[in-house]
Amino acid sequence: MTMFKSLDDIPALAETLPQTDMGARSAALDRQNSLTKPPGALGRLEELAIFLAGWRGTDRPQINHAQALVFAGNHGICAQGVNPFPQAVTAQMVANFQAGGAAINQLCAINGAALEVIALDLDAPTEDFTTAPAMSEAQTLDALNTGAQAVDPQADILILGEMGIGNSTIAAALSAALFGGSAAEWVGPGTGSDAAGIARKIAAIETGLRRHAGQSAMHTLAALGGREQAAICGAVLAARAQRIPVILDGFICTAAAACLHAADPRLLAHCLVGHASTEPGHRRLLAALGQKPVLEFDMRLGEGSGAALALGILRAALACHNGMATFAEAGVSEA
Amino acid sequence: MTMFKSLDDIPALAETLPQTDMGARSAALDRQNSLTKPPGALGRLEELAIFLAGWRGTDRPQINHAQALVFAGNHGICAQGVNPFPQAVTAQMVANFQAGGAAINQLCAINGAALEVIALDLDAPTEDFTTAPAMSEAQTLDALNTGAQAVDPQADILILGEMGIGNSTIAAALSAALFGGSAAEWVGPGTGSDAAGIARKIAAIETGLRRHAGQSAMHTLAALGGREQAAICGAVLAARAQRIPVILDGFICTAAAACLHAADPRLLAHCLVGHASTEPGHRRLLAALGQKPVLEFDMRLGEGSGAALALGILRAALACHNGMATFAEAGVSEA
Repeated sequence: MTMFKSLDDIPALAETLPQTDMGARSAALDRQNSLTKPPGALGRLEELAIFLAGWRGTDRPQINHAQALVFAGNHGICAQGVNPFPQAVTAQMVANFQAGGAAINQLCAINGAALEVIALDLDAPTEDFTTAPAMSEAQTLDALNTGAQAVDPQADILILGEMGIGNSTIAAALSAALFGGSAAEWVGPGTGSDAAGIARKIAAIETGLRRHAGQSAMHTLAALGGREQAAICGAVLAARAQRIPVILDGFICTAAAACLHAADPRLLAHCLVGHASTEPGHRRLLAALGQKPVLEFDMRLGEGSGAALALGILRAALACHNGMATFAEAGVSEA
Repeated sequence: MTMFKSLDDIPALAETLPQTDMGARSAALDRQNSLTKPPGALGRLEELAIFLAGWRGTDRPQINHAQALVFAGNHGICAQGVNPFPQAVTAQMVANFQAGGAAINQLCAINGAALEVIALDLDAPTEDFTTAPAMSEAQTLDALNTGAQAVDPQADILILGEMGIGNSTIAAALSAALFGGSAAEWVGPGTGSDAAGIARKIAAIETGLRRHAGQSAMHTLAALGGREQAAICGAVLAARAQRIPVILDGFICTAAAACLHAADPRLLAHCLVGHASTEPGHRRLLAALGQKPVLEFDMRLGEGSGAALALGILRAALACHNGMATFAEAGVSEA
């Protein structure tokens, strides 16, 4: 993977990164229509198998190696009282991931994903975006490159998640800056803010939006985002270079990737969204991105949990796609 | 499992069959609220873990043995031209199940369910319900008992599915008889009927509804149902006797179990519905039963496929419930 050297180079990657393989998609569709079921009867399982076929460039894609990456960062915006948990919880949860005790550990284990947790300078939070850009361009590029380098070229699919106290405020700020609408339209309770906490989130975001208005998508990422958001963008791009499809998680992960969509929508063509979070901004964001989530399960945890849950569905889709008999093979009469 | 000796004895089973264990549910909820996540952040995964805890009677339920039963039957109503596939396809698909080539085989394999396929007198279809009751009481009881006896008492969960050319007409007829509404409101394309085929389905059901009106739920099962529908009811009741929760599949499987709901709604308290089928009658039926499906995936295959897909979600729910660390264990600060 080429190292990212300038934020301004990123939108043009849409011209050079691989595209889906239409021949593989077409062959996968032909196979689906030959299997012992009414055409289309497996619904979205069929669509997912064909999606994976196109990105892996084969009519019979497999998931032999699923990689899950969880990026963690800390945020200066916590100085504005946007989260009821102490900022130390970010490192405590990273330790919990490393000890195997979090939801993402269980979901990766049961669905067969290799989990790697990458803590990004937790002792040096980003700047408070109400008073300064959250990150310099150099810091943003560092995080982008860390995310890109973490992607295993041997992976067949990549699950992305995040951890960072305060980062639902980051997600709402990015979403409002990229897609418009008031801060209040993008803000929700996050890990559990009450009405006063939500009011503090809105006020902080309004200040940040005024301070950092009028910038390109990738410079908005630097001004309002955080290291885990930039790392997610780097991983999405590195995966694309290897034709590895990506499952994004909930509001925070999707908002990070939305910076790439705003840079050029084609940059997310290889990405699914694993689930629709109950964090209210997520549905609005999914609509802005034109994404239909794989699952709707009233989850709002982050960590990549919804994406890891969706991996099980993709495995089921490929089990049917690759394992079923055709009408001819099974000697079953057609209509 | 006591053998069923009279259809009229079935409603009263609601008084004697086991109920959910409220103590186990409460202990499971306490555990969920102690795990390293904001309370409720795993959404429906938490609800499913608590549901399983109540029925298994333990705060830490496990799925060590998942059983899947697919019942197959043939239907005299096919004489009315209600299905574009020849009736021989029922036996051909049973052979496909036995050879491992169908969707249900792949979904059971990937989600760890032991699949058993039970063909019910395929060479002797039920009567055409436009001209006679589909089954005698003795035939119905035979199928109920076959279904009940097929349930493995060692199972931790039971997945139910069916196969039977013509049985979307059976499902629509049962639904209309049990819950009211016109035949047209319950009929859909099934395996792929065109407009003329759908018109034949509606006409056949209207005739059947007139002929067999005014009977109890279980006698309606005999008059309009089929052997696989009765076997599903028997399996649902036998599972309940063993405190084994059940995952019903789509329209046809749910319509079969709906006979028990109409007999006494408490008889389905241990049942989930695995998915919402695109067969239009299913959503109407789910509303009548007050059931929220586990998944919505635009599937319409039957065989137990949606229920087997949902099993993977239940396994994920229990993986989190049993495997996650508590705040105290992980040393994570609370809000």
